[in-house]
Amino acid sequence: MNSIEPDSTQEPQAHGRTESEFVIEALALGKNKRVRKLLGRMHPAKIAALLELLDAGQRTALWQQVDAALESRILSHLNSNLSQQLAGESSDVLPQEQPAPALSGGFKLNKVNHLTAVREALGQGKLKRLGKILQRMHPAKVAGMLEGLPPVERAKVWSMVDTDRTGKVLTYLHDEIRTKLAQDLDPDDLIASVQALELDDLVDLIQTLPPALGSQLMQATSGGRRQQLDSMLSYAQDSAGGLMNMDAIEVRADVKVSTVLRYLRLRETLPPQTDMLMVLDRRGHYQGVLRLSALVTSALEARVADVMQTDIEAIAVETQDTEVARIFQDQDLLSAPVVDAQGRLIGRITVDDVVDLIRDESDRTLMQMAGLDDEADMFAPLLVSSRRRAVWLGINLVTAFLAAWVIGQFQATLTQLVALAVLMPIVASMGGIAGSQTLTLVIRGLALGQVQKGNIRVLLNREVGISILNGVLWAVVIALLAVAWFGDWGIGGVLGVAILINLLCAAVAGLAIPLVLHRLGIDPALAGSVILTTVTDVIGFFAFLGLATVLLL
Amino acid sequence: MNSIEPDSTQEPQAHGRTESEFVIEALALGKNKRVRKLLGRMHPAKIAALLELLDAGQRTALWQQVDAALESRILSHLNSNLSQQLAGESSDVLPQEQPAPALSGGFKLNKVNHLTAVREALGQGKLKRLGKILQRMHPAKVAGMLEGLPPVERAKVWSMVDTDRTGKVLTYLHDEIRTKLAQDLDPDDLIASVQALELDDLVDLIQTLPPALGSQLMQATSGGRRQQLDSMLSYAQDSAGGLMNMDAIEVRADVKVSTVLRYLRLRETLPPQTDMLMVLDRRGHYQGVLRLSALVTSALEARVADVMQTDIEAIAVETQDTEVARIFQDQDLLSAPVVDAQGRLIGRITVDDVVDLIRDESDRTLMQMAGLDDEADMFAPLLVSSRRRAVWLGINLVTAFLAAWVIGQFQATLTQLVALAVLMPIVASMGGIAGSQTLTLVIRGLALGQVQKGNIRVLLNREVGISILNGVLWAVVIALLAVAWFGDWGIGGVLGVAILINLLCAAVAGLAIPLVLHRLGIDPALAGSVILTTVTDVIGFFAFLGLATVLLL
Repeated sequence: MNSIEPDSTQEPQAHGRTESEFVIEALALGKNKRVRKLLGRMHPAKIAALLELLDAGQRTALWQQVDAALESRILSHLNSNLSQQLAGESSDVLPQEQPAPALSGGFKLNKVNHLTAVREALGQGKLKRLGKILQRMHPAKVAGMLEGLPPVERAKVWSMVDTDRTGKVLTYLHDEIRTKLAQDLDPDDLIASVQALELDDLVDLIQTLPPALGSQLMQATSGGRRQQLDSMLSYAQDSAGGLMNMDAIEVRADVKVSTVLRYLRLRETLPPQTDMLMVLDRRGHYQGVLRLSALVTSALEARVADVMQTDIEAIAVETQDTEVARIFQDQDLLSAPVVDAQGRLIGRITVDDVVDLIRDESDRTLMQMAGLDDEADMFAPLLVSSRRRAVWLGINLVTAFLAAWVIGQFQATLTQLVALAVLMPIVASMGGIAGSQTLTLVIRGLALGQVQKGNIRVLLNREVGISILNGVLWAVVIALLAVAWFGDWGIGGVLGVAILINLLCAAVAGLAIPLVLHRLGIDPALAGSVILTTVTDVIGFFAFLGLATVLLL
Repeated sequence: MNSIEPDSTQEPQAHGRTESEFVIEALALGKNKRVRKLLGRMHPAKIAALLELLDAGQRTALWQQVDAALESRILSHLNSNLSQQLAGESSDVLPQEQPAPALSGGFKLNKVNHLTAVREALGQGKLKRLGKILQRMHPAKVAGMLEGLPPVERAKVWSMVDTDRTGKVLTYLHDEIRTKLAQDLDPDDLIASVQALELDDLVDLIQTLPPALGSQLMQATSGGRRQQLDSMLSYAQDSAGGLMNMDAIEVRADVKVSTVLRYLRLRETLPPQTDMLMVLDRRGHYQGVLRLSALVTSALEARVADVMQTDIEAIAVETQDTEVARIFQDQDLLSAPVVDAQGRLIGRITVDDVVDLIRDESDRTLMQMAGLDDEADMFAPLLVSSRRRAVWLGINLVTAFLAAWVIGQFQATLTQLVALAVLMPIVASMGGIAGSQTLTLVIRGLALGQVQKGNIRVLLNREVGISILNGVLWAVVIALLAVAWFGDWGIGGVLGVAILINLLCAAVAGLAIPLVLHRLGIDPALAGSVILTTVTDVIGFFAFLGLATVLLL
């Protein structure tokens, strides 16, 4: 808390009110961060006096906000009765980490059930204990835990996160929760919390927070950092420029290894995730990289030119981020240089951001296939979540009504042969399942680059071949089951043929839909399954009921 | 090709046949690797003589296998006519890289359409050109391209990959294709190709190849490498032990920075992806890490103990691999120490393997939700692929027949009110869509650790709340549409109530199914959607037709 500058906008004395009044007010509002800030400026004796004035509930709540380092000094100013009581509140044992049982499935609950520990501490008002738990957690874990909490508890926990860690926690949150929690902070707390962030994290924050907040953060940045920030913000978020940082260390090819080492020792620290230095010519053009591992194993008299590596191609600044991810993955890179159109080095991308990107991308595909937004808050207000999901249900309703309309065309047939109504969902369902297999295969193939113009025809032949083999197999099985059920060979035959037709169409649709969407620049994961279901439902019902009308009546 | 040991099992002269006969035989079998090996042992004049003996087709095919370095020496032994003709075959221009148009979607076709270039070269029999294209491609790209080729072309291209790169290419392939292509190699080519692999890649190969091939690879490894291999193979494939490498560089805390630097300079190289040295005590216990970036920025007189970092927790060797991925992602690690139960360092995990793991995991989730195997070959023999997909269709058929059976119970009702048959798919479909949204949310929440015991009740309340809001909304909309269509308020009312009921059940099922599967150790992504569809179909049809029977007849 010591790093916070004096809060000029809310300086207590300025309004003629006492510090204690401000503390009580902030406490009542649940603004724990502000309470701690105010307490930090008060003399221990004054805090003790305030504690004595408060009723038992307020007193415990205030005590929970007192810094551990100050406790003993405050306790010495209190009467022994109160002193003992409050000291008791502080002596709390933290939950121990326990090994979790191994699971054979792909997933695994967190080693320590932080969520339960945190909710318990919250429920008992043990905010000091909560603060201690939070301090022991990595910012990423804090972020994950916040996302797993309902809004009211989330706000309470958020108010207990130290200001010097809130910035880092924000960077790990998904967009919606990030915005909400950033808005919950006092503006100057928010600004203070991002001072220590790496520039690429700050850029990411500015780009995803509402413009008003973003520009506040920008205005609070100045000097060289502001210049770098401005230039980084000029690149598209989903490009190499949007992923990069500007903290590359540059060296020249004609200097000696010993000179580089001396220079680095003068610097005293290197930016995080530095595994290589960038070798530039005198006009700033990228020449190659000098890995730290080469630097520490080379002779001191060697020149950089002799020990640098030139086989790492620089990434053009406008490269699509998914392509960057593929380059990193294919070449096992830890970091990579980014250059402008003239080949001048402008930054570097580090693998930690690429890892986040890869996970986000796959996450998005999974969520989009169910019509969900991967950046949305699992605990968004009920009405907001309902509205979002309603849209997807509405779109699918159109599909459902289209299918119903097709069935509606055959009401006369259905009245005469009610067995058709019983069996028709089977045709639609088998088509949908088969089609979604082809669809998923192609969506993944496009993402991995396995599906390209050059092999689409081969793929089509295969998918059609598979659908004929499976179509014949299941057509026969299902037809025989239907004959056994309804004792009618005609119904069985029509059912079998309809299934064969639908599986065939499903294969073609499952291949064509993602390719067309991809060509149109629409993400196939988002719209693919709805369109596919429409096709397989309509064709399934139409083929089955149409054939039955023609052949059986 | 120079690194290959003499092929004792197939030494030509041993069988009393001439080198030329072996070359012609290998050529006819398409064993291009063997052809090149044999040619490598023959005198240029002898190759020239062989070329003159062959017919035009064979001659061109053989010429395509001649090493570029040998060409001129062979040509000098040929008559000028033939010499000119073959020289012409070699002067080929490689396709140029072209920038691809940017796509707004999440995917992007490969920059250079290698697949098309390769298939073209294959079609024209220009194997030399193919070899050149392959040599310019990164092994990962070669692997991706091989996966995008149909089997016959794949085998041809595979035979043109240089032996010193085949091992690396194998590591990038998915299991099924990897096994097939490894079996296509001559055993001693396979063994030669893996000599240069990093140990963790070799372990991965041995674990995924058929046992017979795997033990061949093991037997071909000896000395210290074999010992490390044995101990790495003793850990579960999906544990930290299965991900780790044993190439960590170890230092002691009490030595000086200058000593470490001198030691590293004597080593001359560091293992790939080395960003830190491991600091151990005299009994091999992990103490902390010395980052290269700290090493190069510290004073030469400083002791390792003063500049090492102790806040990087070692990973226990039995830790689940998904947990390792989370640790890397949360802490932005490039590598991490792995320790045994006594805290002794036994290896290190590097981020490149974690990146592959993360992508594989999300890939698996996506594919499993459609009942597909992510390690399967897109171009597996038609019957194999058909059989695999048939299983999934069969499982879903049970679901479909269950739904049909429910409908079958209401045949009398359907005969009297055919409108019910028209509208009933809408009830099932809306339930399925709503349920799969909840299901996907929970599956992702489990993977990210957002869903834990501590918040399941809150989540249940929310999902039920959302389903009631959306249920009421869409029940009213759909009921009104049905009334407008069939002019029957009773049908509309029953339809609305059935939809409300089904959405409610879908929410509960969408939450409960993945949690129960997860508890049972079954991957929810695999079985979740089938079970969910069964529930929403059965409840949907039963509620709609049951209510109609009771209320409308």
